[in-house]
Amino acid sequence: MSSMFGKRLRVSLFGQSHGECIGCVIDGLPAGEPIDLEALQAFMQRRAPGGAYATKRKESDTPHIVSGLYNGHTCGAPLTVLIQNSDTVSRDYDQLKDQPRPGHADYPAEVKNRGFQDHRGGGHFSARLTAALAAAGGICLQILARKGIHVGAHLFSVGDVMDQPFDPLKVSMADFDQARTGFPTLSEEAAESMKGVIDAAREQLDSVGGIVECAVIGMPVGIGEPVFDGIENQIAQAVFAIPAVKGIEFGEGFACAKMKGSENNDPYMWQDGKTMLGSNHAGGILGGLTDGAPILFRAAFKPTPSIGLSQHTVSLSARRDAILEITGRHDPCVAVRAVPVVEAAAALAVLDMILMRED
Amino acid sequence: MSSMFGKRLRVSLFGQSHGECIGCVIDGLPAGEPIDLEALQAFMQRRAPGGAYATKRKESDTPHIVSGLYNGHTCGAPLTVLIQNSDTVSRDYDQLKDQPRPGHADYPAEVKNRGFQDHRGGGHFSARLTAALAAAGGICLQILARKGIHVGAHLFSVGDVMDQPFDPLKVSMADFDQARTGFPTLSEEAAESMKGVIDAAREQLDSVGGIVECAVIGMPVGIGEPVFDGIENQIAQAVFAIPAVKGIEFGEGFACAKMKGSENNDPYMWQDGKTMLGSNHAGGILGGLTDGAPILFRAAFKPTPSIGLSQHTVSLSARRDAILEITGRHDPCVAVRAVPVVEAAAALAVLDMILMRED
Amino acid sequence: MSSMFGKRLRVSLFGQSHGECIGCVIDGLPAGEPIDLEALQAFMQRRAPGGAYATKRKESDTPHIVSGLYNGHTCGAPLTVLIQNSDTVSRDYDQLKDQPRPGHADYPAEVKNRGFQDHRGGGHFSARLTAALAAAGGICLQILARKGIHVGAHLFSVGDVMDQPFDPLKVSMADFDQARTGFPTLSEEAAESMKGVIDAAREQLDSVGGIVECAVIGMPVGIGEPVFDGIENQIAQAVFAIPAVKGIEFGEGFACAKMKGSENNDPYMWQDGKTMLGSNHAGGILGGLTDGAPILFRAAFKPTPSIGLSQHTVSLSARRDAILEITGRHDPCVAVRAVPVVEAAAALAVLDMILMRED
Amino acid sequence: MSSMFGKRLRVSLFGQSHGECIGCVIDGLPAGEPIDLEALQAFMQRRAPGGAYATKRKESDTPHIVSGLYNGHTCGAPLTVLIQNSDTVSRDYDQLKDQPRPGHADYPAEVKNRGFQDHRGGGHFSARLTAALAAAGGICLQILARKGIHVGAHLFSVGDVMDQPFDPLKVSMADFDQARTGFPTLSEEAAESMKGVIDAAREQLDSVGGIVECAVIGMPVGIGEPVFDGIENQIAQAVFAIPAVKGIEFGEGFACAKMKGSENNDPYMWQDGKTMLGSNHAGGILGGLTDGAPILFRAAFKPTPSIGLSQHTVSLSARRDAILEITGRHDPCVAVRAVPVVEAAAALAVLDMILMRED
Repeated sequence: MSSMFGKRLRVSLFGQSHGECIGCVIDGLPAGEPIDLEALQAFMQRRAPGGAYATKRKESDTPHIVSGLYNGHTCGAPLTVLIQNSDTVSRDYDQLKDQPRPGHADYPAEVKNRGFQDHRGGGHFSARLTAALAAAGGICLQILARKGIHVGAHLFSVGDVMDQPFDPLKVSMADFDQARTGFPTLSEEAAESMKGVIDAAREQLDSVGGIVECAVIGMPVGIGEPVFDGIENQIAQAVFAIPAVKGIEFGEGFACAKMKGSENNDPYMWQDGKTMLGSNHAGGILGGLTDGAPILFRAAFKPTPSIGLSQHTVSLSARRDAILEITGRHDPCVAVRAVPVVEAAAALAVLDMILMRED
Repeated sequence: MSSMFGKRLRVSLFGQSHGECIGCVIDGLPAGEPIDLEALQAFMQRRAPGGAYATKRKESDTPHIVSGLYNGHTCGAPLTVLIQNSDTVSRDYDQLKDQPRPGHADYPAEVKNRGFQDHRGGGHFSARLTAALAAAGGICLQILARKGIHVGAHLFSVGDVMDQPFDPLKVSMADFDQARTGFPTLSEEAAESMKGVIDAAREQLDSVGGIVECAVIGMPVGIGEPVFDGIENQIAQAVFAIPAVKGIEFGEGFACAKMKGSENNDPYMWQDGKTMLGSNHAGGILGGLTDGAPILFRAAFKPTPSIGLSQHTVSLSARRDAILEITGRHDPCVAVRAVPVVEAAAALAVLDMILMRED
Repeated sequence: MSSMFGKRLRVSLFGQSHGECIGCVIDGLPAGEPIDLEALQAFMQRRAPGGAYATKRKESDTPHIVSGLYNGHTCGAPLTVLIQNSDTVSRDYDQLKDQPRPGHADYPAEVKNRGFQDHRGGGHFSARLTAALAAAGGICLQILARKGIHVGAHLFSVGDVMDQPFDPLKVSMADFDQARTGFPTLSEEAAESMKGVIDAAREQLDSVGGIVECAVIGMPVGIGEPVFDGIENQIAQAVFAIPAVKGIEFGEGFACAKMKGSENNDPYMWQDGKTMLGSNHAGGILGGLTDGAPILFRAAFKPTPSIGLSQHTVSLSARRDAILEITGRHDPCVAVRAVPVVEAAAALAVLDMILMRED
Repeated sequence: MSSMFGKRLRVSLFGQSHGECIGCVIDGLPAGEPIDLEALQAFMQRRAPGGAYATKRKESDTPHIVSGLYNGHTCGAPLTVLIQNSDTVSRDYDQLKDQPRPGHADYPAEVKNRGFQDHRGGGHFSARLTAALAAAGGICLQILARKGIHVGAHLFSVGDVMDQPFDPLKVSMADFDQARTGFPTLSEEAAESMKGVIDAAREQLDSVGGIVECAVIGMPVGIGEPVFDGIENQIAQAVFAIPAVKGIEFGEGFACAKMKGSENNDPYMWQDGKTMLGSNHAGGILGGLTDGAPILFRAAFKPTPSIGLSQHTVSLSARRDAILEITGRHDPCVAVRAVPVVEAAAALAVLDMILMRED
């Protein structure tokens, strides 16, 4: 397992779903950055379980900083956040050691870890770990904001229902604020339709996938460390750490495969004494470097693999087919709560690249 | 710039489009691996320029190994490959220092590198660098093959024309061989249609995008180092090093955002005394770990940004709008020659993960 | 700050002397390793404060594992150890923010961290952090022992008093056991003399330096990743993380600068059907690789910089010279308690290299 | 093998003694740095073979930069230097595959590399590789000099003969220049005595060890990334990449183990409106951070293991003892030519740390 991310900023995530606590260490933070703990708690609350469209697991998800903070500011030492696991009901998972859940890491994790995997609630592979990612990213978001860089996301789609997309050139703080109020969409009609799709999936003991769209505004031009640590490589590496992500695309993404160069190229214009872009098909990234337009990407989330419907699996001990009935508490659409987690992952990637810039 | 990749295996790419040579260093290769130089040359030939659907730039692209090989085998020392740049016509690019090409890294690279960017042919950002990536990956492919792991790709689509996809569970060496013969598709009809689309784009002085699909067969179960170095994170980091890639998806990818959990989950079956998968919507990856099914992913390539049509840009010196006419030699569809490069990138990522496994 | 170590095994240390807790995350541990918590506690006790020749600070130093352990075995997830800071008397340190202590990191840390340094007790620079290093190393020692690799150290010298050195070829578990009983020397006479030197320094409100010698036995031949991650590079990088270390030497070390090649070279002999070494001037390392003889190195510790004698310093606020009187509790000879910490640092370095070996 | 160094700046060394060429890639260099090729050549000449107190191997050691340089300046792309191996006489080494040389890496390298080691001239373990290290370091030295940071070294001792040491607080460019003229000492008398010692060793078909002392002046306060990448950890990791180094010490080093705290602590003084140090026992480093005084360290070099005297070894094929007679050309004292290599290693370590500083 390798749960460390970053070049200049290095983030280590730890914990298992049903262990004592989860958390993160952030090594390499600049000293002197004030951390607003209430704002951090509020950010994490957007991800926290307990809402109508989320798992019924109750967790207060209070980030507790045990190192790296002194008099309210980062002090240059590694910053460590602990988050207690309180509401763990491990008996829900006892059968899963023997009968791996389709769509989960249970089986390959058991193989990789030679039978020693902590299978309770998915262990280190659990979506619970995204609380630690959110804590790390939430701290980065505060530091980025003071540099004029803001990250925001919304639920782009659930099943066949689409939200209004971000305007590629004009996406703004107002859009981010809109998506942070209530259900994480820009359009209230889309929110209602999505809720209907999710409710229907839940009633069918099933789940549904979705797409999260994320933007970063205020980035200087020329940030990124190609060819292997360009902005796209970095964000992709961070975002694929979120369980259930199966695809990522920047700007036009897969759609640009059907486009002509004359359609997809973003022309430059001389405006207000500087070089500006006339469109943003590139998602703000050329050659792995920021080009001055908003960074824009979308991450595809698969439907929650834990569903109430019975499923075919195997019994590893009995060495035969088996039918699995999953009980326990699960989000019918993981993409909903993933919205702030995508922001957090993007924040880690972007702050690391900002700190890599030569000054 | 950060052109180094890998954890256990570490690959450093170097060179600029119009410099003396490009190449790579591979640090961390196991000793005692025979390297078949003819096979390496043949692999690189699939990427080489000169064909009907490629740039007219002539390069022999002969990989020259200057270290790390002794008596035909890796000797444990870093393996270095040099590839000469012979056919460089730098006058083609002289105006581009002032007038950045839309869709290229010219402008952000000039900002990042404070005016010292080697702009000739795109410098280090050029697709020419994929020859160095192909050399590194070609060596990894040979080592993987001896472990029973094979990587193959084909041109999944060009514009609106689609090739026959890989069968997610049954993709085989025969498919890979088929795609390596002539135009890189599984279907000959698709090849002819794609050629028509590319010819039409070329005649219009335009370009067109495409998608490359790649599979890895023979992977053991449980390979990958989640949460940040899982198979998806790793392959994504490597594949986004290929210029023009704007998206990547694994298994159903973006399509799974419209699916139900009951549709997308891959059931397990007990078959021939072991755990097998009944479908492969996950692209062979669960929780960042291989699950035993073929790894399957697709990378979206934008249309070549260098087109013959005149484009709007700016003159950085004159500080005003400008009209750019790009001359020089360019592929009308970069996805065609990218097919072996995607294999190479996947091979780097996969071999690194294989070497990370605890034994 | 960069408190992360290792290539394959990656250890992150965190915490400040007077923060809530200190600890470590170990990422990349193989799964299935049993961890004996009592043995870990006993190992850490050797470093713990409170003895006659140590600071009077009282700390139980109980390692509390909050992740990575399941049913008594490593489970493949990052292993996190927390150690509470209980007996922190921060008023002892209040003046030091203004008047940096000679020989401590106070002043450069304040500059580096732009005035935001947590100066209480030296913050992250405190020798208190070696408890976290000891926890990480203590876990590695248990894993190494099951591979037949053992690490032991003793107090080689204090001031002018020298212990009996390890026999370079025959150093054994019995020697390690001897040094773990009571005062950490091989010779009881040396122990008594050293205590006298330390007592005298304490009475003079002064401190004294020392040297720790460490051996690793049972290493296979050919371990190490030269040229930058050879055994010497690795151990040196780990050992210089211990505060107060000012030098490291392997085998004959500085003495070999006065030797002839014919004296210093270790001849090979064919014995019992294998290649053996006739002497061990090299400290078990040739070209950065283990050669089969015991690894042998010595680390020099400076005298504790915190002394009771008044010292010249400056007042940063008053911008003038000042006289500093340090109160508080300090070891008169840090080398004594450093003995197990050197073992811990060596264990981290060696286990990382063992895991890097290609199998 | 892991021949990559650095965090922000990443240097990859490659090549074998008798391969086609050796060289380095430097990834992460800032763009816009002019590189003076003549100065680089002159720097490398100080290390080059051919002088009276060096091997008779003839190498022009011309650094040939094939990437990363454009119009005489770094362009942000990885900078690659090639150095041809011209005068390779491999027959000198043929017997060594079977009969490993005492004091060399031959035997452990053969084990590590499973019999595939390029044994000719020591392969990648050869001191020949220090030419690549010198090239990388020589480039860093030029960049450091423009920041007011200078690195210089001299031959501190050979056998029992000692040069005049650097003045810990006042070491200056004049001292560096002195040591760069002729034999690398500060004192001409010491030079003559050392030559006598070396001549005597050569005549006895033997070799002799030595110590190199190195200083870095002009460093800002607070540079370094403790606890694992502090200045001492970094320099040690770099310097132990030089073959034959067996020890390193900073400031008083091993001598401080015999000192009292009151003797070893460096007092602060308020002088010229800033904080200054009254002595420099710490070698300019406190807690892994620069304190404003010159960085001062010494590296111990063992006597050249290749000697003309016959030595005991084994025949790996015959599985019995053997007597080895080494022919070929070897420095009787590797420390002499190592002086600029130590400067180069220090320059890599220091520039990496300078680039890590948050601005």
